[in-house]
Amino acid sequence: MCGVTGIFNHPKAANLAYLMLFAIQHRGQEGAGIVSSDGKNLFLKKGVGKVGNIFEEKEIKHFLCGNAAIGHNRYSTIGHSCLENVQPIEIKHLQDQIAVCHNGNLVNAHLLRKELENHGNIFKTTVDTEIILHLIIRSSKETFLEKLIEALGKIQGAYSILILTKEKLIAVRDPLGVKPLCLGRLNGAYVLASESCAFDLIGAKYQREIEPGEILVINKKGIKSYFLPHCQYKCQKKAQCIFEYIYFARPDSIIFGIPADSIRKQLGRELAKENLTTADLVCAVPDSSNAHAIGFSQESGIPFDQIFIRNHYIGRTFIEPEQRIRNFGVKLKLNPVPSCKGKRIIVIDDSIVRGTTSEKIVRMLFSKGAKEVHYRVASPPIKFPCYFGIDTHKGELIAKQLSLEKIRKKIGATTLSYLSLQGMYQAVEKFSLSAKDFCDSCFTGKYPMPIPKAIDKFCLEK
Amino acid sequence: MCGVTGIFNHPKAANLAYLMLFAIQHRGQEGAGIVSSDGKNLFLKKGVGKVGNIFEEKEIKHFLCGNAAIGHNRYSTIGHSCLENVQPIEIKHLQDQIAVCHNGNLVNAHLLRKELENHGNIFKTTVDTEIILHLIIRSSKETFLEKLIEALGKIQGAYSILILTKEKLIAVRDPLGVKPLCLGRLNGAYVLASESCAFDLIGAKYQREIEPGEILVINKKGIKSYFLPHCQYKCQKKAQCIFEYIYFARPDSIIFGIPADSIRKQLGRELAKENLTTADLVCAVPDSSNAHAIGFSQESGIPFDQIFIRNHYIGRTFIEPEQRIRNFGVKLKLNPVPSCKGKRIIVIDDSIVRGTTSEKIVRMLFSKGAKEVHYRVASPPIKFPCYFGIDTHKGELIAKQLSLEKIRKKIGATTLSYLSLQGMYQAVEKFSLSAKDFCDSCFTGKYPMPIPKAIDKFCLEK
Amino acid sequence: MCGVTGIFNHPKAANLAYLMLFAIQHRGQEGAGIVSSDGKNLFLKKGVGKVGNIFEEKEIKHFLCGNAAIGHNRYSTIGHSCLENVQPIEIKHLQDQIAVCHNGNLVNAHLLRKELENHGNIFKTTVDTEIILHLIIRSSKETFLEKLIEALGKIQGAYSILILTKEKLIAVRDPLGVKPLCLGRLNGAYVLASESCAFDLIGAKYQREIEPGEILVINKKGIKSYFLPHCQYKCQKKAQCIFEYIYFARPDSIIFGIPADSIRKQLGRELAKENLTTADLVCAVPDSSNAHAIGFSQESGIPFDQIFIRNHYIGRTFIEPEQRIRNFGVKLKLNPVPSCKGKRIIVIDDSIVRGTTSEKIVRMLFSKGAKEVHYRVASPPIKFPCYFGIDTHKGELIAKQLSLEKIRKKIGATTLSYLSLQGMYQAVEKFSLSAKDFCDSCFTGKYPMPIPKAIDKFCLEK
Amino acid sequence: MCGVTGIFNHPKAANLAYLMLFAIQHRGQEGAGIVSSDGKNLFLKKGVGKVGNIFEEKEIKHFLCGNAAIGHNRYSTIGHSCLENVQPIEIKHLQDQIAVCHNGNLVNAHLLRKELENHGNIFKTTVDTEIILHLIIRSSKETFLEKLIEALGKIQGAYSILILTKEKLIAVRDPLGVKPLCLGRLNGAYVLASESCAFDLIGAKYQREIEPGEILVINKKGIKSYFLPHCQYKCQKKAQCIFEYIYFARPDSIIFGIPADSIRKQLGRELAKENLTTADLVCAVPDSSNAHAIGFSQESGIPFDQIFIRNHYIGRTFIEPEQRIRNFGVKLKLNPVPSCKGKRIIVIDDSIVRGTTSEKIVRMLFSKGAKEVHYRVASPPIKFPCYFGIDTHKGELIAKQLSLEKIRKKIGATTLSYLSLQGMYQAVEKFSLSAKDFCDSCFTGKYPMPIPKAIDKFCLEK
Repeated sequence: MCGVTGIFNHPKAANLAYLMLFAIQHRGQEGAGIVSSDGKNLFLKKGVGKVGNIFEEKEIKHFLCGNAAIGHNRYSTIGHSCLENVQPIEIKHLQDQIAVCHNGNLVNAHLLRKELENHGNIFKTTVDTEIILHLIIRSSKETFLEKLIEALGKIQGAYSILILTKEKLIAVRDPLGVKPLCLGRLNGAYVLASESCAFDLIGAKYQREIEPGEILVINKKGIKSYFLPHCQYKCQKKAQCIFEYIYFARPDSIIFGIPADSIRKQLGRELAKENLTTADLVCAVPDSSNAHAIGFSQESGIPFDQIFIRNHYIGRTFIEPEQRIRNFGVKLKLNPVPSCKGKRIIVIDDSIVRGTTSEKIVRMLFSKGAKEVHYRVASPPIKFPCYFGIDTHKGELIAKQLSLEKIRKKIGATTLSYLSLQGMYQAVEKFSLSAKDFCDSCFTGKYPMPIPKAIDKFCLEK
Repeated sequence: MCGVTGIFNHPKAANLAYLMLFAIQHRGQEGAGIVSSDGKNLFLKKGVGKVGNIFEEKEIKHFLCGNAAIGHNRYSTIGHSCLENVQPIEIKHLQDQIAVCHNGNLVNAHLLRKELENHGNIFKTTVDTEIILHLIIRSSKETFLEKLIEALGKIQGAYSILILTKEKLIAVRDPLGVKPLCLGRLNGAYVLASESCAFDLIGAKYQREIEPGEILVINKKGIKSYFLPHCQYKCQKKAQCIFEYIYFARPDSIIFGIPADSIRKQLGRELAKENLTTADLVCAVPDSSNAHAIGFSQESGIPFDQIFIRNHYIGRTFIEPEQRIRNFGVKLKLNPVPSCKGKRIIVIDDSIVRGTTSEKIVRMLFSKGAKEVHYRVASPPIKFPCYFGIDTHKGELIAKQLSLEKIRKKIGATTLSYLSLQGMYQAVEKFSLSAKDFCDSCFTGKYPMPIPKAIDKFCLEK
Repeated sequence: MCGVTGIFNHPKAANLAYLMLFAIQHRGQEGAGIVSSDGKNLFLKKGVGKVGNIFEEKEIKHFLCGNAAIGHNRYSTIGHSCLENVQPIEIKHLQDQIAVCHNGNLVNAHLLRKELENHGNIFKTTVDTEIILHLIIRSSKETFLEKLIEALGKIQGAYSILILTKEKLIAVRDPLGVKPLCLGRLNGAYVLASESCAFDLIGAKYQREIEPGEILVINKKGIKSYFLPHCQYKCQKKAQCIFEYIYFARPDSIIFGIPADSIRKQLGRELAKENLTTADLVCAVPDSSNAHAIGFSQESGIPFDQIFIRNHYIGRTFIEPEQRIRNFGVKLKLNPVPSCKGKRIIVIDDSIVRGTTSEKIVRMLFSKGAKEVHYRVASPPIKFPCYFGIDTHKGELIAKQLSLEKIRKKIGATTLSYLSLQGMYQAVEKFSLSAKDFCDSCFTGKYPMPIPKAIDKFCLEK
Repeated sequence: MCGVTGIFNHPKAANLAYLMLFAIQHRGQEGAGIVSSDGKNLFLKKGVGKVGNIFEEKEIKHFLCGNAAIGHNRYSTIGHSCLENVQPIEIKHLQDQIAVCHNGNLVNAHLLRKELENHGNIFKTTVDTEIILHLIIRSSKETFLEKLIEALGKIQGAYSILILTKEKLIAVRDPLGVKPLCLGRLNGAYVLASESCAFDLIGAKYQREIEPGEILVINKKGIKSYFLPHCQYKCQKKAQCIFEYIYFARPDSIIFGIPADSIRKQLGRELAKENLTTADLVCAVPDSSNAHAIGFSQESGIPFDQIFIRNHYIGRTFIEPEQRIRNFGVKLKLNPVPSCKGKRIIVIDDSIVRGTTSEKIVRMLFSKGAKEVHYRVASPPIKFPCYFGIDTHKGELIAKQLSLEKIRKKIGATTLSYLSLQGMYQAVEKFSLSAKDFCDSCFTGKYPMPIPKAIDKFCLEK
């Protein structure tokens, strides 16, 4: 996934970029970085781990100076999790300083890199973001904007990019609009973020989604919008990631124009229409499936209950008693309440990727005395890998490998069913969105652009 | 609050004590400690902060040896938060080694300490737990059990104590049974914990609550139960802390014999019976009020919805933008979904202590466009300080200072109402519990024992 | 060894105590602590490791308040190296606060502790210093000074003690004056330290050694000297530790009234008189034997040279290549210069305890091509354990186990000789000191007081 | 300065590179790094600070794999002290991996970098070492050796370079041989280091200095020597840094073929011949001037004594009492023995750069009661900046700004004199070295190559 944040024309730019990163921490916890600009210099600080552990107050106040800043939360889809690969990536080149960060994946990154290396360029990271910088620097065009447009013309994939130079902040969304990126205002300042919940935290007002193919240039004079040449009359076709609605985004975010939790509740309602069964209660796999479960309960009339209690103190450094004790990881996080004993329970899950958590969830319920466990999934079976920013490798997708009945047996549920593709689109159409504006390749295998061979997570390191 | 855990006769004693501490981390996050025994020596490790940050795998495996262990999560009610004051407190005395930890508060601690110091005893901490050790050591009785009973005869207050010596583990609950303490089995081992959710994590089976006034002695020969002299024929009267049901305990724990979440849902139902209003939806102040809100929704028929989204990445080290920005702390943790706009909302809160969070909750909803905010509290107004382990100082109790209407104005709600004392007891009586077996002094000011003057949090340090 | 520092009546008391601890860091590197007093409260900070790693500027400035302070560098002779055992040891008792630290060893500590425990006292550490506090607290005398004198009357051994209460600083030296302790002035302030080099660092002026059996009480009114009852007319006999001159003290310190480096050079001269041989050059085992070697060179006329080069970057965390590579530890610290090739070398060592370093020194010289290595030791053979603060266990003393010739063979030297006891005393008598005022029990086995059985390093932990 | 180490064909390559870095830690303490090769991949670990604090045992054993390694100690002459600028610098480029580190300074680095950036290359650091990598990558030559020679043909300055690729280790010394670099053997392995003392630590045998202009290629087949084209018939003229003898190198190292301490003692002897005076004793500013002082004493017959005692516990984190207390820094490290009172003292210093330490040294002696302090410097006055790796900025050189008499007054010495340039060369000629083979530009201003304008420490960052 990854998350990006940006701000222009605010005296506490780095601090607000930091707060916004904090709000979208769920989009990536492997590393984070902020670059600020005071008009004369860029200042960079990045680190491995979570936002709250990387930045110190003094640094934010005294080192990350200036009225503009961009920030990034890293979730590793390309390249190893080392400090070098944490974004933003910043370079000094002649008189210029440029920093860039992005959410998404370039599908032709390995081809472009090889070409650039053959021309004598040296890369300092293994993340695809760096390629954009090399393409800009090597461009023979005159202005920075022209160089950028030439560079963007060469890259293919999903990208929501923020670029910071000494004097300007630029936001770009790819022509298909795969990943979200939205614009807001905070008094006189412009703010940008992958999700609108970042604006809520700092009291900024959500304005709109950046358009697919749009290039937004913000500087002292104000804001100006451009479009990539082939998107000049706006893109006919979009390929927005449907999984942002199903799982990625925080429920309190407005994504592609619609609040995520509204879509989720509707997905739960559609699921109830398609897959009803008799039961005593409906519960969610917390916390990502809460909205789906509430929708299901409202549609079906079966009471919603909170069955799984979360332990909020999970940290990185946990010592398990013995490796052979199975399911320990989930037990630390979740525990069913005693009152589930003797009950017929419908469990709502947003999706199933590998199925390991589902198996533990079902087992925990039965071991606490549940009578029946009906597993309901608020999205279709995931059968195909994603090349645009989600880490799903073929071998791990349970629905690619097993039939519905075999999945049910494996996870141990009394019954199992998924939402249909049609049901999923009925949910989004309820909000006047069009099915054809979404990428559903993880369910259907129909990719919105050609995928070059030999692409995988570490392809830039080979 | 504080939490205690204990285990006897298990080869991974310290590791399981550690896991159980982790499960009841919500009872205290200021420090934690474990003492183990291998029959010949006691081994102690303690630290400041949360369980997951204090213990390292190597220490647990190689240093905290033996088949028995006790552990403690500290929530500071008495004494400063320094390492010395973290429990268990362990002493070496002649041939003996004794470790002790407890949940609760001794109301005559300052008097006993002064007396002991006048006799030439030196204290190493400012926590009341240490007094018990001095009383045992100074006792002229013959056996350890006799010494312990003599010591317990001198202390007054609420205490659920675990004591570990080289050969035995002893559990004691005060004659009024103020604080919970339960017994479980894990194959051949006995386990003890403040809450039964600790047993779930390690796969142990809940057996029963320790009785008020009971002294349970576990050694190689087995388990044996004694009672404090004045409790020999079981105590007539109990004073169990009702607040364990309302707020303290995890909803998945069995407390005083009944699952906490069942009581909570019933409190929500009683609240709905007493305080209904027209509204579009019911929501909870997460996560502690979820069960109350679900009960309210079920009783009233008004749909339950998840309005507040929690940020799960809150850490200790957070940098706020400016101190004058109000409400920042809560905004970091909670954000309402956009769909609350235009809605009439019933917010369920388990209780109000100082009212500062309630105020922020209401303000957040209105700033997101809520039409009406009806604040409903699933317990009576808290008007009196607690001397048995909860940190409520008179000056801070909003219901002590303001009338209902003034509280409503201060928090900014459309309407405000509390559950009545009668309603609260109807909820517990639904589960065959008797109102007279509870301490409700925080609501009524009727304390179950005389409270000596000049008792406060730091009284042992003066 | 251990080192103590104290200061009274200076606005930067804790900072100066810290600096003085730093100057005498060589006396103990296992832990350090400082207690300060602002007249109303004592403030304590201690830690494991070296002074420079334990204290932070903020703590010294803002936490360790007041005009008086005492500090301690720990070298573990009694008790384990855990934080609890780091001195000063501080207690709160009724209205009083008392902190104490000492350099030395109490030989009847285990007997006194058992007695106190039988009376119902509980100890919080395993260091003998704590016993003094219990004895003071239990004394039935009226004034603090009377209580202290009663307590001191019960302890036996070597002790240079500093005590800090809210209003006064007290310094005590045992009746035999085994360990050093000196008094200085810094403008209006009184300073105390184990060695005078601590005064140089802070610009204080050396005044005098505290007398054996003297009790110095410093408070707002000034300084007052008392003597232990049996020392009232000054002690006839002293038992000053001769090893302070040979090895312990820094050469720039005045010890027992005489600069240590002057005595050392004289020891080297006596060694040259007794044990001359033909050679090309004289060198020292750096840095502790430099002065002895210079004295030897001056007396003998054989040129002094610097053969061993020290690596100043040795830290705690060093990774050796393989455990079987012998002598690695010393090679990291010392390396001979290439020009020692073909030379006949006299190596001067201050003393030999276990002989392992000597062996490595000789081997390094021969492996660099030295022709002859004549090992000369500037003190007599160490054959007996020390019970007063030095960590020499019988089994490890090479001179107790092997003859001179066998030692020579083991360390591989061409020739080996020690300074005689007579030669050693001729050196100190040169400075008008009397041989009978020294403890030489490590060479002779003649202890200045009876030693109870069963005393060893961990005797208080059994 | 900086220091480099390398090793080829040893199963513990990284560990030995680490140990050698430790031995030459004095050449740079701002950062260190190691790159190892297992024939298929390079592995890099670097950090800020000292060697002992950067590397952990596990990393060295399990991560820094392979039979070959190079290491670097950083002393910042070019670029800021951030992690990015720590060497070795390692790149991945197409199928290749190359790591490089060097000791020295390129005087045309800023010009080359600008040229490369104009060609579209992006730099990841601000250290001049990186330029060499870009020049190699951009070379159109066929083989790696040809590319390297082309790259070296473009750079000017002082450089002792180590390069590691997957299969080979290459060592290069600039045509003038400004900085040292020597070759050794450890059984079947080749080792390289800036100073031979690194070989002593690991038990390797010193073989020879790398020749000026020599390129040594070590791979599985063995070792092969090449020369830079303009050095094919060996360089006529060398410009070896005389300051390596005076101050930089450890005295136990063989530098440019001669043990450093032998030269130093001879410098002291020449100083005694030129600048004798009547005195009671000769002492050194420890530890760097010890050998010079011993030479002076031997030539003059005035006894050598150890006057300054060093505190070996100086760490980074030291808290000074107040900033206005002058001279504190030196007092922490050095303290004169009390016996210097009333003495006429000759102090030998290897060199004077800014004069601040000299001033403190003289003041300390007088404040301890010295009668006369005769300051003698074992090298000529430093009047010109060094562009080849020493951090001497014009403004700071006291001898550039003040006359001899004014310097004497400033430092407060009774008399002051320097060794003459002639005397310095007589010392080296004693060892059959030729005066014309040395760079003495810091004394004479005669640089061995033209120096481009605008060169300074941060020139690559502008």
